[in-house]
Amino acid sequence: MNQKEQLRKHKIKLLISYDGTDFAGWQRQPNGRPTIQGTIEEKLSQIFDQRVVICGAGRTDAGVHAIGQVAHAWLPKNPAPFKLFTALNKMTPPSIAIRGVWSVPEDFHAIASAWEKEYRYFIVDGPTPSAIRARYSLWHPKDIDIKTMNHLSQVLIGQHDFKSFQTSGTDVPNTNRTIKTLEWQRIEPRLIQIKIVGDGFLKQMVRNIVGTLLYFYRESLSAQELKQVLLACDRSSAKDTAPAHGLFLQAVRYKQLS
Amino acid sequence: MNQKEQLRKHKIKLLISYDGTDFAGWQRQPNGRPTIQGTIEEKLSQIFDQRVVICGAGRTDAGVHAIGQVAHAWLPKNPAPFKLFTALNKMTPPSIAIRGVWSVPEDFHAIASAWEKEYRYFIVDGPTPSAIRARYSLWHPKDIDIKTMNHLSQVLIGQHDFKSFQTSGTDVPNTNRTIKTLEWQRIEPRLIQIKIVGDGFLKQMVRNIVGTLLYFYRESLSAQELKQVLLACDRSSAKDTAPAHGLFLQAVRYKQLS
Repeated sequence: MNQKEQLRKHKIKLLISYDGTDFAGWQRQPNGRPTIQGTIEEKLSQIFDQRVVICGAGRTDAGVHAIGQVAHAWLPKNPAPFKLFTALNKMTPPSIAIRGVWSVPEDFHAIASAWEKEYRYFIVDGPTPSAIRARYSLWHPKDIDIKTMNHLSQVLIGQHDFKSFQTSGTDVPNTNRTIKTLEWQRIEPRLIQIKIVGDGFLKQMVRNIVGTLLYFYRESLSAQELKQVLLACDRSSAKDTAPAHGLFLQAVRYKQLS
Repeated sequence: MNQKEQLRKHKIKLLISYDGTDFAGWQRQPNGRPTIQGTIEEKLSQIFDQRVVICGAGRTDAGVHAIGQVAHAWLPKNPAPFKLFTALNKMTPPSIAIRGVWSVPEDFHAIASAWEKEYRYFIVDGPTPSAIRARYSLWHPKDIDIKTMNHLSQVLIGQHDFKSFQTSGTDVPNTNRTIKTLEWQRIEPRLIQIKIVGDGFLKQMVRNIVGTLLYFYRESLSAQELKQVLLACDRSSAKDTAPAHGLFLQAVRYKQLS
């Protein structure tokens, strides 16, 4: 075995939850600004006394939260998952929680093995903001009619080229994605939950969808007009990007592993 | 009318919610550290172009949150409650939300007219912390048995001298208080809510009660031993003070006004 093979002895899967408010997103940054990936790698590297790198299923933007982010990592030693889970939770700040650590087969890959992702977006509507939900939801002073939102959302469900909803500047060869679920639901008198499930998402696609749907609602635009935005395959045809702090990566689902 | 009478023209009641994390408590402080009272007074004074003072029903500690804090204020002009409500919510930071503004009779007093206060305390128990609830709950890595907690809590329900549960250094002539409700409930698989209703509370009484009950649970002490703590009427006989960030002032109730 060469050195690299020796390092690649044990593969683990991590289930991670975080409050993204005070982080510059998931992805490690060269400028030293705190990120979720960087923080967890630092703690794992301390535990194993050598550099450990993790690979996350979703590179969430600055300010986006997660309930069920998934990452994999190669570890130099047999990790004893429960001990590692307890040690990590003692070391990470309160804004990052490790929900589980499992040994996984070598061929498990947090990104490549994922077959479905679920995001949720929360909105407090009406004239009264919520102090307690302010970090985790968008405040929309105008009341929102759920039925209208679900009617508009129908246009986006299914397989489409979502280029209009991809933040420009990114370069992805294939911008076709399938949205399996896009559902607005009033879960409390003044709290709306948007559930979005798909096989994959382009850069800021969820935030661009939510922002555009809210714009269409406020401007009383039609589902037919939304269809034109989708068919244009041009980001400039879509509208607002909803703010990051209402968005949660809820779950990443795998065929073999739950 | 003298100048003071001219200022005291209109009395309002404010219903206020806040995330107490970044505040040095409710009460205005001479050292300029941000407080909830100070922030709201500053905005009201800007609106009315002269100093406005508010009086809150509960002087919550640094880090304690509120869903239903109540305050009263004298205003120099007829306030047009809905306009004032909208203006204040635009001016306050997201961590402070004004839930309502009403005109009230002259004899309404946020402290003196209150006949009941409700606090809630939240605990996440078990080995997995919650990143999203971290600001608003205590993480207790050991599982908590609700039945035991409710059994212990029975000792404290009713009218008692709560001197043992008052943070020392304070000087209150009468330390008798009545706890009407003290109820532990598991509201989610890993989330416990403690509901405490009483006619009034001594300084840090709720946090001292929760901290002491948790100590009794961890040390397997009996209800009989808890009774001894209560009867001792001595703060040193009680145990831990639960941290501020799990506590919410839920509601202040008034006989005449809801």
